[in-house]
Amino acid sequence: MSFQSKLHQATQQNNSLLCVGLDSELSKLPDCTRSKDNPVLYFNKHIIDATADLVCCYKPNYAFYGALGAAGWETLRATIEHIPSHIPVLVDAKVGDIGNTAQQYAQMFFEGLGADGLTVTPYMGEDCVAPFLSYTENATFIVCLTSNKGADDFEKKALGTRPLYEEVIARVQQWTEHGNCGLVIGATQPDYFARVRALAPDMPLLIPGVGAQGGSAEEAVSNGQDKKGAGILINSSRGIIFASSGEDFAAAASTAARDLRDELNRHRSTQ
Amino acid sequence: MSFQSKLHQATQQNNSLLCVGLDSELSKLPDCTRSKDNPVLYFNKHIIDATADLVCCYKPNYAFYGALGAAGWETLRATIEHIPSHIPVLVDAKVGDIGNTAQQYAQMFFEGLGADGLTVTPYMGEDCVAPFLSYTENATFIVCLTSNKGADDFEKKALGTRPLYEEVIARVQQWTEHGNCGLVIGATQPDYFARVRALAPDMPLLIPGVGAQGGSAEEAVSNGQDKKGAGILINSSRGIIFASSGEDFAAAASTAARDLRDELNRHRSTQ
Repeated sequence: MSFQSKLHQATQQNNSLLCVGLDSELSKLPDCTRSKDNPVLYFNKHIIDATADLVCCYKPNYAFYGALGAAGWETLRATIEHIPSHIPVLVDAKVGDIGNTAQQYAQMFFEGLGADGLTVTPYMGEDCVAPFLSYTENATFIVCLTSNKGADDFEKKALGTRPLYEEVIARVQQWTEHGNCGLVIGATQPDYFARVRALAPDMPLLIPGVGAQGGSAEEAVSNGQDKKGAGILINSSRGIIFASSGEDFAAAASTAARDLRDELNRHRSTQ
Repeated sequence: MSFQSKLHQATQQNNSLLCVGLDSELSKLPDCTRSKDNPVLYFNKHIIDATADLVCCYKPNYAFYGALGAAGWETLRATIEHIPSHIPVLVDAKVGDIGNTAQQYAQMFFEGLGADGLTVTPYMGEDCVAPFLSYTENATFIVCLTSNKGADDFEKKALGTRPLYEEVIARVQQWTEHGNCGLVIGATQPDYFARVRALAPDMPLLIPGVGAQGGSAEEAVSNGQDKKGAGILINSSRGIIFASSGEDFAAAASTAARDLRDELNRHRSTQ
């Protein structure tokens, strides 16, 4: 099933715009996981089991698995395998390289790890994005306007007559012909959502930055949703998965996910 | 020993500006490697042994190892371990993410894999680059003006009063205080080298794109070298490591590396 079909299905079934970021940094895991054979996998499985009825997507960031070496790869693969098949998995790796190398990354993430979607950095231009877009069942989310302070350095600066991030959106619209492309727009950038939606009315937006990074859930939904009250994946990582550092970590993650899901839904124009 | 010290030492000892790209794509390896327990590691060790007296640096691209899964990690780690300690290893991964994630990548590549240097994409701005720069013994090479066609899409376009890639150089100059930063400038962009050198007279330049991508060795050296006839790492991958698909692959790589090294040296202003 395609990323888009899974996203639609999970959004409907769980009545949710919430994407849970599985940034399961080993040093931050609850003490009760430390005695397990594979603490990160144990933790992830319990988080997934506790939230699978509340999310529209899961987003593991590759860095937290890569940092664990060869074992991290297997942990990420087994984590993705544990996610119910009707929920899409978007791996956040922000890759970007020339064509023959991009092809290797597409194989790595889409085929080797079984990711439904992947984040890709647009800096190097079209031929570095094209190999991902050719996987028509998978989604490619282009890093566009990010949630961090450094978004001011280049992304918001004028490239010709409009900000670089707008130029990225315009070019991405030209590159995609299979409807399998999305954009990454930080939740800390609410003033820009209306402009993004005007330029890309139908593209799904991955919106990180709610929670630890300070983005407002209300503004992300109110300004980011498409005409159908959907088309957004509001990501929260630390605020959900590290809601408790005790033995109740999974139950606490479930409560935090439910609370945020319900808060997001209160701001949807339609459901 | 720092990246810069290793680079200086290898450049002097081997009288070389040649960086060999270890993009050892499994499907392209000589048939004679296929019966080995780990064809890629077997291949890499023989390539390294045959060229270690001819290079200033080795540059494995992470994608070709990531695509092999958990085994790829171990292959890359063992490859780096096999490289003589006086030759720097620059891992090409073009990562770029927010601070706590960038920190994970720095650990992964500098600590876990033992890389001396790493390529980083600047799109998301300063706070995404800073965690790498804080590893003062390691070098961070910022992706700036690349060798592919897509460089026209954003990199060469005017951001304010100058091209985006020039703005990147100017900002990188501000960010670095430890002299551990370099730039990636494609060899297919010879018209731009003079401008890059004017903006960054002392930064080492990683110059990929000679060989399979069509860049000229003469132009890369003539226009890219610093005042001392150094400060450039001219990368060739496929043209060296796949010089022969026969049992003589290592000897052929040695010959190709020697020929290119000598050609590069003919264009140095001083040695």
